[in-house]
Parts: sequence; structure tokens; C-alpha cells
Amino acid sequence: MTNRVSEILNIKKPIIQGPMSWVTNAEFVAAVSNAGGLGFLGPNAGQVDITRSPEISAERMRTEIQKTKSLTNNPFGIPVIVNRDLAYTWPLIETVIDEKVPVVLVNDTLDERIFKPLKENNIKIVYRPLTPTIENAKAAEKFGVDVYVATGFDEGGTVPERVIGTFSIVPMIVDAIDIPVMAAGGIGDVRGVRAAFALGAEGVFAGSVFIPTKENPAAEKVKHMIVDATAEDLLLFRTLPAYYRSLPTKLANKLVEMDKQGASREETAQLMRGSIGMRIGMLEGNTDDGYISIGTGITPIKEIRTVKEVVDTLMQDFN
Amino acid sequence: MTNRVSEILNIKKPIIQGPMSWVTNAEFVAAVSNAGGLGFLGPNAGQVDITRSPEISAERMRTEIQKTKSLTNNPFGIPVIVNRDLAYTWPLIETVIDEKVPVVLVNDTLDERIFKPLKENNIKIVYRPLTPTIENAKAAEKFGVDVYVATGFDEGGTVPERVIGTFSIVPMIVDAIDIPVMAAGGIGDVRGVRAAFALGAEGVFAGSVFIPTKENPAAEKVKHMIVDATAEDLLLFRTLPAYYRSLPTKLANKLVEMDKQGASREETAQLMRGSIGMRIGMLEGNTDDGYISIGTGITPIKEIRTVKEVVDTLMQDFN
Repeated sequence: MTNRVSEILNIKKPIIQGPMSWVTNAEFVAAVSNAGGLGFLGPNAGQVDITRSPEISAERMRTEIQKTKSLTNNPFGIPVIVNRDLAYTWPLIETVIDEKVPVVLVNDTLDERIFKPLKENNIKIVYRPLTPTIENAKAAEKFGVDVYVATGFDEGGTVPERVIGTFSIVPMIVDAIDIPVMAAGGIGDVRGVRAAFALGAEGVFAGSVFIPTKENPAAEKVKHMIVDATAEDLLLFRTLPAYYRSLPTKLANKLVEMDKQGASREETAQLMRGSIGMRIGMLEGNTDDGYISIGTGITPIKEIRTVKEVVDTLMQDFN
Repeated sequence: MTNRVSEILNIKKPIIQGPMSWVTNAEFVAAVSNAGGLGFLGPNAGQVDITRSPEISAERMRTEIQKTKSLTNNPFGIPVIVNRDLAYTWPLIETVIDEKVPVVLVNDTLDERIFKPLKENNIKIVYRPLTPTIENAKAAEKFGVDVYVATGFDEGGTVPERVIGTFSIVPMIVDAIDIPVMAAGGIGDVRGVRAAFALGAEGVFAGSVFIPTKENPAAEKVKHMIVDATAEDLLLFRTLPAYYRSLPTKLANKLVEMDKQGASREETAQLMRGSIGMRIGMLEGNTDDGYISIGTGITPIKEIRTVKEVVDTLMQDFN
């Protein structure tokens, strides 16, 4: 069984493992691609510390890309994080082209300067805005995006600015554009995959479900916390740019309390310390000072499995 | 095609039209039941003003029940609103038993005194808590509830206290209990129905999709506003008990602004004036002083149809 997403991305099963910050590396990503999905190296893939240099950052990614290529012959991707001044973007684009990475993920910004070199090198573009809208879906289609990811509020971490669940956002976007749409947010088992397709998606984009796997670099403690948790346990609080969802940690509880007491989004964001708070929580398993981004689809996850078991189970309808 | 929900409720198609305040009446509810679903008279069904007398309130409901019975031979239901002191509850229960209404909807409270007379009279009980939880689902099952409605945050009006979308809440509840679960929140077209079933639901509970119908007593202006709106247009603000979702009205915009400025839930609730604000908005079409409860599943609704057309389209897989 193939469809537009599997054909465009040249994969067997139309599933993308989301490029989560910190909790990806070559072994993990190659396992997803070897299982027939599309693995994605995320920001800080394979790293344990942060560099502020765009060039060093790109070189670290190059090393991880080469390692991934040594572990799989199947396609995989990296995110071309588009931030304000594009400082990190150019070295990453050069690396992608040099290393012939077949797929990239572009976030909010639609910029001709970024799209041109990617398209010229026949690199497939998955576009995933923070907040899916009819407007940015139509704009993405015009820009030549290959696949659009419609993320619902069921996801973890930095959730969309508009509180529209996966159930409602997917058909809305599917009706707005002709390019294939993948559903993100709340994909926890095969029922979620079937529902995504019923809603009109042609693929699924999953993050949380891949963290409690043997190959994932997240702390063992975090994997067990996910297995033991349900959607009811998750905390939601206001921060920049909108809301954040985390497993309960001492820091996350404090952020919820601050939000209730009327703290500004800037104040909660400052306490989160951006990517550092995520590294401390997810990679180091420090549930005092870090947070743990997880979506509401995790309830059915009851054991730590291999990546292949996760892909096989989720995509059992695709053979 | 039958399933547990259609058998328990003695209906052809496993769909319940939610008992929405103000915007139901005998003609509308009978149309749903005649189309093979389960119509529900809502609070203030067929009324244009409020009475503070529990007895008069129950008598008004009795009149509407009798009118509904004159218009359909199929089952329909009424909600037995369980409020703090049960003042409105007893006269309603007497009316339900007197009039042999086959199905009731019970909201949050699970109270032996309420369940006993209903069960003794073989009245089917649909239980729909504001916030579905594993705990209240298990408790409802023990109490002898016949059908549990799992409402996701995709719904309109007073949404659940926990921000868990329909996509995530349905499988969570399905896994917790053995009685049949219906999905509510975001059912806008047949894709939503198929997705609900894919997630494990055995029926759907829909509100917003039934408002822009020829038979619904909502103001024509409101029906056209729904047809013209997408999920992106909806406003969400904090109030009692948690959050509220409305189409944009002058009042709703003001409530969003108050929430942003740090107003308390009590303050926004006071300005909403409870059921009165809904009557003014939805029944009278006053978009200055009222609000209009609508869920995020409305995007695919593009025209005003008959109730039968809505039921036939949503439930096209059930014949």
C-alpha cells in the first residue's frame, strides 16, 4: 500500500518521526528509517551541550548525518530551523545539500531564499508551522511545499497558538489545499493513525510515542514516566509563544502556578530557559529543574518498545 | 448495521443530538429522532424566557415532551440536570417517569437517589460529565450508566476543564471501561464520525452541526454565522468552571480581552450572565450582548440543511 506521502518521501510507511530537540541521534533516527518510516534528526541531535556558533552547530549536524547514513540506506531528514536572522539556517542548508539529505522540515517562515536552493537540489520540503492556518497552508502550497503537517493542540511541548484539536484541524487543512497533509498531535496507537486517515490525512507525524523506545536517547527515567502517565497527568501553562505542555516536574508545577498567579508569558518563558530546560528534563531526567514535552496521545503507551515495534504497530495497515 | 449504542438506545443510527440550552424544541428534536438518531430536548426547550420555579420548569418540559411525542414515534431524551440542591432534578425525574421518556442524560453527579428511580423504570442513562476522566468513567460504569459520552476540548460552549482534544480523550476512556463510549466535540462531517469510530467510540454526540438546520430554533443570523465561520474564527476565554468557546460577538470579544487583562473566572462568568447570555446570542441573534456556543468541528459546514440531511450525511456508513 502506497500513497502520495510515501511516494513523495520515498518511504514504505507514511509516518514521520518528528525532529524533537535533544532526544534524537543517528541510531534512533536510522532505526525509524530502517523500519520504513522517515526518521528526522532534531535540533542538537546526538549532543549533550549547546553551541552558540551556527557553523559548529551545522558541523555537529553533519557528523550526525554521516553517522545516520552509515546506519541506514533509507531516506531521513533534518529540520532547517528558520529563525529571525537566518544565521543558523544558511550553514544548515549548505550541509543538507553537501550531504544530500533527501528531506528537510521547514517551520513557520516561507522564504524564497531558503526554498530556491532546496528545490534546485531536489530536496523534499515538509512544512510544519507552529499554528496551522488556512492562510499559511495555501501559502505553503504556492511556495512548492511537498507535504504539509497539520498539528493539533493534542501535541506536546510548544503547542499551536490556536486551541484547535487534531480532530478539528486536520479536515480543515485538508479542505484548504491539494498537497498531502499529515496529522500531528495525539498519535499514540493504531487507532490514532486510522482516525488521522479518516479525517483526510495521508500520513502521520509522531513525536511522543517514539520517546519511550529502546533506541531513543531520552533518560530512562523519562521513558518510564511516559509509560506510567496518562493524558490526565499532563500540565499546560501559558508561555511564549502561546502554551506549553509538559509531564509534571517540579519546574512545570511552578510554571503552572506562576501562570495561575498572573505571570506574563515572558516571565514563564524566562524560567523555562528554552532548549536548556528541555535538555535538563528529557535528556538528563532532572525532574526538578527541567520540563518534559509530551502530547496527550500517550495514554495507550504501556511499555518501552523498540522503534521497529512502534512503527510496525502504528502502521499495521500499511504493508 | 447496528451496534451496542443503537441497540441500547433503540435507535437506527448511533448519533445523539446534544441537549443544547435554548436551541432545541419539539419539532427539531422529533426531526432528529425521525431521521434515525436520538433527539434530545435541552434546557429551556421551546422557551423564550426563564422561570426560576423548578415545578414550572418541569411543566414546561412536560408540554414539550408531549409535543415531541405527537411528532415522532421514535425514542428521544431529556437531560436530568443535576445541580447542587437537586431542586430542579426531582420534578424532572417525575416528569420523565410519568411521560415514559425512554432516555435521559445525566451530567456530573452520580447519585444513587437519582439513578434508582430511573433504573426501576427502565430508563436508559447517558452520562456526560463536563470533564471525562478515567475515574468518573469507572464510577459511571459501576453506577449502571448505559452509555458514556467522552467530550473532547474540540466542543463549543463550556468545554472540559482539562485541555484534552477529542482525538486523545476517546481512546483513553474507551480503554478504561467496558460500557459503550460515544465521542463528542468536533463532529462536523462524516470524516469526524469515521474518526470517532476509528478511535474506539461506538457512537457520536453532536451539537454545533445541528444548529444550522432548517428545524433548529436558533436565530437565522446565527445559522448563517456558523455556515460562514471556520474553527479559526472561534474565541476561547477563561471563565467558570474552566473555559468557554464562542463565535465572535461584541460580548465574546470583551470576555477575551478581560481574560487577557487578568480578570478572574468569576468576573468573566458574571458578565456572561449564564444561560441568559446564551439565549440572547443564540436564540435572539443579538451579537452585542450575547454569546454563541460553537465547537471547532464546524469548518466543513457550508450550508443550512434539514436535520435529516445532516443525519443522513454524518451517518452514511450506517444503514
